[in-house]
Amino acid sequence: METTGKQPAKIITLLTDFGHQDPYVGIMKGVLLGLCPEAQIVDLTHEVIPYQIGQAAFLLEQSWSWFPAGSIHLVVVDPGVGSVRRPVVLQAAGHFFVGPDNGVFSRVPPGEVREIDIGASPASNTFHGRDIFGPAAARLARGHSFAVLGSIIQDPVRLSVEEKVVLHIDRFGNIITSLRSASHPGPITLRVGNAVIKRRAETYAEVPPGELFLIEGSSGYLEIALNQGSAAAFLAVAVGTRL
Amino acid sequence: METTGKQPAKIITLLTDFGHQDPYVGIMKGVLLGLCPEAQIVDLTHEVIPYQIGQAAFLLEQSWSWFPAGSIHLVVVDPGVGSVRRPVVLQAAGHFFVGPDNGVFSRVPPGEVREIDIGASPASNTFHGRDIFGPAAARLARGHSFAVLGSIIQDPVRLSVEEKVVLHIDRFGNIITSLRSASHPGPITLRVGNAVIKRRAETYAEVPPGELFLIEGSSGYLEIALNQGSAAAFLAVAVGTRL
Amino acid sequence: METTGKQPAKIITLLTDFGHQDPYVGIMKGVLLGLCPEAQIVDLTHEVIPYQIGQAAFLLEQSWSWFPAGSIHLVVVDPGVGSVRRPVVLQAAGHFFVGPDNGVFSRVPPGEVREIDIGASPASNTFHGRDIFGPAAARLARGHSFAVLGSIIQDPVRLSVEEKVVLHIDRFGNIITSLRSASHPGPITLRVGNAVIKRRAETYAEVPPGELFLIEGSSGYLEIALNQGSAAAFLAVAVGTRL
Repeated sequence: METTGKQPAKIITLLTDFGHQDPYVGIMKGVLLGLCPEAQIVDLTHEVIPYQIGQAAFLLEQSWSWFPAGSIHLVVVDPGVGSVRRPVVLQAAGHFFVGPDNGVFSRVPPGEVREIDIGASPASNTFHGRDIFGPAAARLARGHSFAVLGSIIQDPVRLSVEEKVVLHIDRFGNIITSLRSASHPGPITLRVGNAVIKRRAETYAEVPPGELFLIEGSSGYLEIALNQGSAAAFLAVAVGTRL
Repeated sequence: METTGKQPAKIITLLTDFGHQDPYVGIMKGVLLGLCPEAQIVDLTHEVIPYQIGQAAFLLEQSWSWFPAGSIHLVVVDPGVGSVRRPVVLQAAGHFFVGPDNGVFSRVPPGEVREIDIGASPASNTFHGRDIFGPAAARLARGHSFAVLGSIIQDPVRLSVEEKVVLHIDRFGNIITSLRSASHPGPITLRVGNAVIKRRAETYAEVPPGELFLIEGSSGYLEIALNQGSAAAFLAVAVGTRL
Repeated sequence: METTGKQPAKIITLLTDFGHQDPYVGIMKGVLLGLCPEAQIVDLTHEVIPYQIGQAAFLLEQSWSWFPAGSIHLVVVDPGVGSVRRPVVLQAAGHFFVGPDNGVFSRVPPGEVREIDIGASPASNTFHGRDIFGPAAARLARGHSFAVLGSIIQDPVRLSVEEKVVLHIDRFGNIITSLRSASHPGPITLRVGNAVIKRRAETYAEVPPGELFLIEGSSGYLEIALNQGSAAAFLAVAVGTRL
């Protein structure tokens, strides 16, 4: 592999709360391709609920390890943009993670974290995906050394992943909770508003329509489901609701 | 493989009912790029109504032939995942089609169909796009022979394409029916609930606002339209509704 | 052209009102990649409100300059498709712009405009993105000369950008107006329906929840915002509403 031109293009994945109607994702891609024309950009999702750091951490956890080693995962869910929260790069398990130091990387393995040195670059106060995180990801994609991006920090923000909370609601209205199925092998009772959910099923088919139940999802977390219905709509819960 | 670097990258198109809020499409792309870094991945749509095989077949029919010969079309609309339905690869008209043997390929030309040999691979029961179909598509993209993917089958599922049904509802609320315009050149009366639609128009402009009418869409199928309104909302029909 | 293989792939950006549920974007990408396999296609957004030329012009203005010189920006927001409006290519500020001559390029710098010579090509009356604009963009991406695409025209449509109108509503319900903040440095009063908005703020945080105010957005235009709420829903305005 002595000729880098024959190496596969570096992959940069994007995970944001920008949605699809605004031009922000496109602008970020323009910056990335301007700095690293060979980058292969992959959208994870841009439909994170605005500012839901915990949901972003969950979606990143589900996705990153399915990409080849060396991939760069850019996360821009950043309610603190313009404040003092630090821009960081994390190297862990052979992958790179770029984004704000607000806990979005709480569910990836720990590794070496560096605060991105923004020097005298003229960053806006509102769009660090374009001005700081994107350029840092592009530099990694071009082969720049991780070490030159900034100095190591010892105290990156890691959210408690033990809190009982709604991590995500999928397309079908299933409620993905923060409870790992493996950590709760026995009977369990969940209370959501006035509803009490006790039944635990192995498959959807074994539960009558209209009944709420718990099931281990493909992510390894316990999910609250409603056969042939949206558990999230029925229970009126949202991402971030405490359980 | 010294010459493959100069060939155009193989195109893999994706057609699913995964939506955009979950991480499934991103995960599938990670698997594809891990196995075939040169693949050029194109999203057809991920907004197929969950489990609507007939709609997926229609959308695939509209799209595949606009891609270059040799393209690989990966379809994951798979209500039977984890059951006995077979994973298949179809070679037809110089293109490849990968997905479940449930009728999603009913509207592409017939060709040679092989059941994907999954051997002892550890496939999940819930995500064959990641575990079976994606890897098969990536192998084709890397130039593996179609023949080695599995054995020929003679009885692939092909849905009747004669059924009168709503195939698709477009962004404007036009109802695309399964009736080919060319097969119904004369007067035609469609009954939907209490509404009777007789008028057939050549252009939208010739019909007063608020009146339902039939028109030949760009797809060659008869569409039920409502000038300056959503026919689908007005008639309260959905994809899959029988006519 | 023996060296072009080593140049970075040409970028083609897409800005349309096609949405994500229909196959049109995918079809256009098939055509582009068939004609120019090396093209790097980037979605700006496909969620322009149908036929809102002014919104498309705004979104293009926000995005194009973040891409490398030589990029090709394909805009298909085309209520006049099939009528006499001209298909055009604009070369300006080192970028190319391809689309209908209906004003979508009103907010990019003026430049040389050519009417695309469609010759005897069999274009549909309904999908010029596939039949005319896509092929023209692909020819530019392959290195064809701008001059051979058609003859110069002197009278391209440029909409008045002075009109007071709602250009865009972002994901958070902020109303982006056509008033440049720099052109209105002093006090300003906006009337929307029965509401009168006078307050001008520098940051969201300084305004109590529930109060409407004006703020300079990242785009340089004045935005009507509602702290912790959707100004657009509160005021019931839409893209295109006159102020």
